[in-house]
Amino acid sequence: MIPFFTGDALRRAVSPERALEAVREGFVAFARGEWTMPPKVYVPAYPAGDFRAMPALGGGHALLKWVTSFPGNPAQGLPTVTGLVLVSDASNGMLRAALDAAAVTTLRTGAAAVLAAETLGRPDAESASVIGVGVNGIAVARTLAARGRRPLLWDVDPGRAEAAAAEVGGEAAATREEALAADVVLTVTPGREVLFPEGSLRPGQHVSLMGADGAGNAEIAARELARVRVFCDDWEQASHGGEVAQCVELGLLGRDDVTELGDVLTGEAPGREADDEITAFDSTGLAIQDLAIALAALESAPDDLPQIPV
Amino acid sequence: MIPFFTGDALRRAVSPERALEAVREGFVAFARGEWTMPPKVYVPAYPAGDFRAMPALGGGHALLKWVTSFPGNPAQGLPTVTGLVLVSDASNGMLRAALDAAAVTTLRTGAAAVLAAETLGRPDAESASVIGVGVNGIAVARTLAARGRRPLLWDVDPGRAEAAAAEVGGEAAATREEALAADVVLTVTPGREVLFPEGSLRPGQHVSLMGADGAGNAEIAARELARVRVFCDDWEQASHGGEVAQCVELGLLGRDDVTELGDVLTGEAPGREADDEITAFDSTGLAIQDLAIALAALESAPDDLPQIPV
Repeated sequence: MIPFFTGDALRRAVSPERALEAVREGFVAFARGEWTMPPKVYVPAYPAGDFRAMPALGGGHALLKWVTSFPGNPAQGLPTVTGLVLVSDASNGMLRAALDAAAVTTLRTGAAAVLAAETLGRPDAESASVIGVGVNGIAVARTLAARGRRPLLWDVDPGRAEAAAAEVGGEAAATREEALAADVVLTVTPGREVLFPEGSLRPGQHVSLMGADGAGNAEIAARELARVRVFCDDWEQASHGGEVAQCVELGLLGRDDVTELGDVLTGEAPGREADDEITAFDSTGLAIQDLAIALAALESAPDDLPQIPV
Repeated sequence: MIPFFTGDALRRAVSPERALEAVREGFVAFARGEWTMPPKVYVPAYPAGDFRAMPALGGGHALLKWVTSFPGNPAQGLPTVTGLVLVSDASNGMLRAALDAAAVTTLRTGAAAVLAAETLGRPDAESASVIGVGVNGIAVARTLAARGRRPLLWDVDPGRAEAAAAEVGGEAAATREEALAADVVLTVTPGREVLFPEGSLRPGQHVSLMGADGAGNAEIAARELARVRVFCDDWEQASHGGEVAQCVELGLLGRDDVTELGDVLTGEAPGREADDEITAFDSTGLAIQDLAIALAALESAPDDLPQIPV
């Protein structure tokens, strides 16, 4: 028998603050080479969507995330992202747990967005905003609130921003411009519209670019990203599918221009170096983040979880 | 809620004969390009073992098998092969079922071994034997019995051969030589010892080589395999990890010397062409076989399956 963590069970087992610490430790272990991540595999089912098989190895466990992206699903009343995370003991291969993949994804996305903002934003940053409050955006807002912030929220649907603000303890922004002007801005949009055109970020700002998961989409203009200090979760993934990819294609950024967050966390590489520097974090989402959340969940598994008779 | 097929539930839902027909249809769909199979990913946890993430797409579904090979497990009272098979709807990504990976593996291995023997063996073949009756060997023997054969069984552990013979309705061979002399021989051993040295197969014989899953292991000598008509489940996999691989490395076999079973089943390529020809089938195990079994299971899912609240 192995436990199955539904989304609710996972949120009960792992608080946003615990998730942030777990994800921090995961990035550090990955940067040190203690955790590894074989490349993810895409199973295309276009035009409807695709499946991804994302493996990771670390902390005595192996993880496989089987997760989807079907952008047209909400129109049918179905979620865009679904699937399962499987965790096995790396010493003998035996399954240890299964978890709802969408819930793991939202928790680790919130954690990474805020971890990057705290690591790379100015220490005296006052205002923090979230642009786009779908399931992952709400998780980012919830993590900010858990870290003592009162986030300013903006969404194309004003009612959704109001509801999210009430839910997590934040404030709905009056305009998008107001939200984009915050000291740290965390964007979680589909990236069909560029939020940051060239020249729009102001000295000292930090932006965590969490959305735009899909070819041709972007939350920031290539020339704006190339103008600032650029960080990412993983060069390999970011240079192929992230915001960084568009800059690489245009020859605006190369490997040496981009710093991985894990290297900042271990002290291997510098983070922000001046108060007036603009920093941007390009998140593509790593299986090692999922592993960090899954291990945190295993540590504090409630007794009443549904069991799978494997 | 999605159903979970335990090993017992799967065996109740899909008989060996149904499995054989399903796997035949899977090989045909794969040969025609209707079903596809992105490359499998290995997650190494050596020296103890490894994990494999095996995806497949077809029949309106996407499959991911997360399965292990930990050869030292039996010494600790644990199975070598464990894991889960996940099946999702390819139109919207929603999970449809989870299945015990070891049970799917044994069922499809038995099906492929016998399918190859029936397709490539002489139509008048009388005797059929199974060498090695671990979990997969018993499945092969059970499939032979379901197709009206009374298989001759041999194992390094004579008691195990006796027990398997009683279980499936076969006969324990008096000697290994007796079993190796059958008209069709289905081998399911670790491949630490070569069963067929050069010159040992006799005209008209067929052998399905199902075992030796691991680098450096082989059930047949390279020069013996190169001497006969060679078939495989998938050139890509067989030329990298199968019995065929050793021949490729030695320059004894190339792509044109090996025929994929699916091409024989569709009529694209000839199978056995003469009564005195020796045929050998090199099985590496394909995710499309797992998909075939999983779809057959979904078709006849019992009402009383445990449910996972995804």
